[in-house]
Amino acid sequence: MRTTTGWLADGAATTLRRGPVERRDLRPDDIAVRVDYCGVCHTDLHALRARSGAEDGVLVPGHEFTGVVTEVGPEVTRFGVGDPVAVGNIVDSCGTCAMCRAGQENFCHEFPTLTYGGTDRRDGTPTLGAYAREYVVRDRFAHPLPHGLDPAAAAPLLCAGITVWEPLQALGVGPGTRVAVAGLGGLGHLAVKLAVALGAETSVISRSRDKADDARRLGAHDLLDSADPDAMAAARDRFDVVIDTIPTAHDLAPYLRLVALDGTLSQVGHLGPITVQALDLLVGRKRLGSAGSGGLPATAAMLEFCAEHGVVADIELLPSARVGEALDRLSRNDVRYRFVLDLSDLS
Amino acid sequence: MRTTTGWLADGAATTLRRGPVERRDLRPDDIAVRVDYCGVCHTDLHALRARSGAEDGVLVPGHEFTGVVTEVGPEVTRFGVGDPVAVGNIVDSCGTCAMCRAGQENFCHEFPTLTYGGTDRRDGTPTLGAYAREYVVRDRFAHPLPHGLDPAAAAPLLCAGITVWEPLQALGVGPGTRVAVAGLGGLGHLAVKLAVALGAETSVISRSRDKADDARRLGAHDLLDSADPDAMAAARDRFDVVIDTIPTAHDLAPYLRLVALDGTLSQVGHLGPITVQALDLLVGRKRLGSAGSGGLPATAAMLEFCAEHGVVADIELLPSARVGEALDRLSRNDVRYRFVLDLSDLS
Repeated sequence: MRTTTGWLADGAATTLRRGPVERRDLRPDDIAVRVDYCGVCHTDLHALRARSGAEDGVLVPGHEFTGVVTEVGPEVTRFGVGDPVAVGNIVDSCGTCAMCRAGQENFCHEFPTLTYGGTDRRDGTPTLGAYAREYVVRDRFAHPLPHGLDPAAAAPLLCAGITVWEPLQALGVGPGTRVAVAGLGGLGHLAVKLAVALGAETSVISRSRDKADDARRLGAHDLLDSADPDAMAAARDRFDVVIDTIPTAHDLAPYLRLVALDGTLSQVGHLGPITVQALDLLVGRKRLGSAGSGGLPATAAMLEFCAEHGVVADIELLPSARVGEALDRLSRNDVRYRFVLDLSDLS
Repeated sequence: MRTTTGWLADGAATTLRRGPVERRDLRPDDIAVRVDYCGVCHTDLHALRARSGAEDGVLVPGHEFTGVVTEVGPEVTRFGVGDPVAVGNIVDSCGTCAMCRAGQENFCHEFPTLTYGGTDRRDGTPTLGAYAREYVVRDRFAHPLPHGLDPAAAAPLLCAGITVWEPLQALGVGPGTRVAVAGLGGLGHLAVKLAVALGAETSVISRSRDKADDARRLGAHDLLDSADPDAMAAARDRFDVVIDTIPTAHDLAPYLRLVALDGTLSQVGHLGPITVQALDLLVGRKRLGSAGSGGLPATAAMLEFCAEHGVVADIELLPSARVGEALDRLSRNDVRYRFVLDLSDLS
């Protein structure tokens, strides 16, 4: 085993403390990554809040990070020491099921191994995340970080970015598509940037009118105020695709009304039971979908696209010692638009 | 006014009695149709069961019928006396909203005028259905019945047929598509015939193993027994499109599991609240939709397609005097696969 330093919760703790984090010795197809930057995702907050006691074991959050390769296993050919890399929220999968064969390791029938809170497929140990100075990962699940992408601002692409990229791609978003992004947070602001870069006419739906300037700065055509009944009524059937990034449970009916004939609402911000009226889908033959995370080929394609179009997250970069502040502010949606931790203070 | 004879419920009645049914005098763009055949739809059963008393007015069910034009208004140019025609479940719409302009009068923003239980857009009177010997309808909402289609067996195409045709078309079903039809009843058996005629590899999902022969006779590749956990597990992610025609509330999760990556489950058999787990959509980026009825252009295209491919419903034809028996047996799903009433006994 090897040891690094990270931010962890153990026992019944729901806050993080600095402490030692064990990593496995490198397997033949592993690389060791010096973690430089790690995004702070809503999932991290949920994972901390969901802790009920010592039986939960140790939690180290963090599943969207960039860094530099420091060591490679003997079978690794894709990477060398010094290469800039990026890793997302899955670090292994069965590799043989239909979904893995289709390059959708995120949907692996045996369930993909999560970057933290998962179970390593080979030795059965729990995975610990990237709020730490080092991460050891199977080479296949790391991506070269393309030149030109700021490594701090690129970190959130690996979870927030790919989560909105996959539905945008699957729904054929491009020039001529009318896209609305509901909720302008970590996921939402990347959905806007990506949809705009893909050539779509893009709107933001938000109850925060004060985000109108931000929406336009991100490239959106306009902001539709979800608290304005007249504006919502006027936008009926207006969008081919609605990417709903709102992170809490909410009624989908007002958003389905905005979807055009044969269009789709993809809910990516909140997971849980969804209830809709069949008639809200029937009238206009609308569809409801969801998406989350991404496969390896799509992640690689997204990173190349982002490098080409200069798309990265709008971030607030904090020393990792301020992780508690970041989580607290995230819980109040007080971030424009993603916190990224700088792990260099752990060296 | 003009008077015909039909089957109606009035007062607090939830059964039908033979009696006089009033029709409007022809407007310039109206045609009068001698109703020869009218299908018996689940909606008819629901409408009868939903009656709570005299305040419900008179109900004459029936919204999928064929017949012959007996009289035309002075502005009618599409039809002449003696023409065979077919009419479905909507008989008017605003004609100006985005959905009407798109040829989706069934989704009219002002709500289309239903063939029965609706309100006439011009005089505000309640519409009375086609369990009657005559119907008066705006010419635009009648379709020429193509040569070669049996008028009795074609009647169910106008509601059951178009309801499954629209999602099959919208979802791009054709050669190479893997389609499953859940539930083999009025809607389901037409979905199978249409999917097969469109060239799709088509399966039936049913808990009635005894329908396996029927499924194959209808052109299906196989029958998947929904009560067999092993068979259902083996069919995971197998179908690009699942058309769910089950007419009662049921858990969609087992059916969503059968949907392939980026595939769609379209629920057309049961209307009401739908609850799904977001993860059941997320994993595989699956989509949930619904559809019902159809627009005028799609209905015309479906009728032509059916004439070309010899697709009609499998029916049990009964004299209209046996409508009570038909409704009773339909309520027990005891029909293969659609009752059609022969209205000539009302002459």
